Amino acid sequence: MAAVTEEALHVLYFVAIIVEAMTAALAAGRRQMDWIGVSLLGCITALGGGSMRDVLLDHHPLSWEANPYLLLITAGAALATIAIARHIHHLRRLFLLLDAAGLVVFTVIGCNVAMALDKPFIVVIASGMITGCVGGVLRDILCNEIPLLFRAELYATVAILTGLIYWTGQMAGLHHDIALVIALAFGLSLRLLALRFGWSMPKFVYTRDLH
Amino acid sequence: MAAVTEEALHVLYFVAIIVEAMTAALAAGRRQMDWIGVSLLGCITALGGGSMRDVLLDHHPLSWEANPYLLLITAGAALATIAIARHIHHLRRLFLLLDAAGLVVFTVIGCNVAMALDKPFIVVIASGMITGCVGGVLRDILCNEIPLLFRAELYATVAILTGLIYWTGQMAGLHHDIALVIALAFGLSLRLLALRFGWSMPKFVYTRDLH
Amino acid sequence: MAAVTEEALHVLYFVAIIVEAMTAALAAGRRQMDWIGVSLLGCITALGGGSMRDVLLDHHPLSWEANPYLLLITAGAALATIAIARHIHHLRRLFLLLDAAGLVVFTVIGCNVAMALDKPFIVVIASGMITGCVGGVLRDILCNEIPLLFRAELYATVAILTGLIYWTGQMAGLHHDIALVIALAFGLSLRLLALRFGWSMPKFVYTRDLH
Repeated sequence: MAAVTEEALHVLYFVAIIVEAMTAALAAGRRQMDWIGVSLLGCITALGGGSMRDVLLDHHPLSWEANPYLLLITAGAALATIAIARHIHHLRRLFLLLDAAGLVVFTVIGCNVAMALDKPFIVVIASGMITGCVGGVLRDILCNEIPLLFRAELYATVAILTGLIYWTGQMAGLHHDIALVIALAFGLSLRLLALRFGWSMPKFVYTRDLH
Repeated sequence: MAAVTEEALHVLYFVAIIVEAMTAALAAGRRQMDWIGVSLLGCITALGGGSMRDVLLDHHPLSWEANPYLLLITAGAALATIAIARHIHHLRRLFLLLDAAGLVVFTVIGCNVAMALDKPFIVVIASGMITGCVGGVLRDILCNEIPLLFRAELYATVAILTGLIYWTGQMAGLHHDIALVIALAFGLSLRLLALRFGWSMPKFVYTRDLH
Repeated sequence: MAAVTEEALHVLYFVAIIVEAMTAALAAGRRQMDWIGVSLLGCITALGGGSMRDVLLDHHPLSWEANPYLLLITAGAALATIAIARHIHHLRRLFLLLDAAGLVVFTVIGCNVAMALDKPFIVVIASGMITGCVGGVLRDILCNEIPLLFRAELYATVAILTGLIYWTGQMAGLHHDIALVIALAFGLSLRLLALRFGWSMPKFVYTRDLH
């Protein structure tokens, strides 16, 4: 990875965890949580995907253990959201854009972790998806809802395809940075198009009871 | 363990994860999840118990890391369920039988993992129960329900007693395969009898509030 | 740590897990779980915080693996609660006192584990809070409720401040046992005052939807 790409990915990662913490804070506000609940939900949503990945892959120490200031940044971003909540609605489009960027950036980082551990192809894709999606699943469980991931809007699909392109690009001999840019651009476009046109996976509806 | 027993346990394990993934798919369908949600819930339900056990016992790599095709099999079984959902009701009895078999097979495998790690007796039983039951707990949490395990039908009891008999049989000097067959037969019978006659543990009903 | 302090902390730890298991049993009874559900929820609530901490910090074996009788004690305490449930209301104040003591004792023990692993300051505080609070979060998730922790009564705040005082006291050169007593006394007082006067963190209320 060229130094400049690594640096860019690093910056994108910070943007991503801040945005994830802020969207978590809004979810907390919709359930009238208190300020501590807001901060905790911010930390868990922003850092939970990477933590789940690291626990499953036995990859220690976790990111927030090695860099504890990540806890302060995400808790701080969640708290700051309380102050600017009135104005966030005007930034709605920016938020959705940054949230989509966060998804693909988390995914690529998760793939990188698994590749650095020499994991096989399917585990690389799973690692990307876990990193990209589990934070939101934990947020929804803690808000007592069926995770959005299981119901809507190509979230997991974007993560899987982004990982697939990133991995395939590198295996096909593309320079890492080229594969990275293609994967990020593809994933971001797909997510934004899905949002714009309301694309979603078909649903499975089953009404009988086995018992 | 004789080679033929090991082989049989292996085959039963595959049947078990496929059946668990299929019942998870039906649960997903009752909540109108999309196809990705169906696949994910299938993987998590089928492989979640073993993964929880391995994370708690620090037993890495997890089964689906070492054998990533398990993710494809369980996701595939969940998706296939969508295609044959109309006909599953006619296979209701077969499903309940295979689900009961899955519970006891998972339990015995969980006990084996803990015994191979030289864990003490109580941890062996706990490991069996976690392997047998946690997948269903995760499924119910993700479907936003109080886990069935905590409310019904001797599920956990069957796992605990199966583990107890399996362990006791071996400690009492029985040949491993004999202990295995007795434990599986006992657990399977108990589960099926509980289903047939509606056996359940007494409930604890408490209506006051401490606060 | 003087031997007598260590002994006292050990005794308090046993009181704490028993009380946590008993309050979990009451929560289980309010949802009409069966006896197995009561025992399991007791174990998970009492031992879940420490287990989560150990899994995240890669600190193996977990307490209940090293000391499996902890599973029996907590399951037993939960079951015993069924027998004495009618009389517990009269012990309401004692319960709230012991629950508060449990919170601060768990917190201090969690800080100790992280400090023994040479973790940085923020991770020490997080480890204390996870140990003190996660058991209750798991209980609430399994009871299908938004965790109380995120909504009420300075629970997490008490854990954070207790850890902060405990750590600061030691860094400031206080004898360990003095820092311990001050932290426990402060945390306990704050929790009881919060209960008595209904202190809570301000809530964040947000009603719009981003999508």
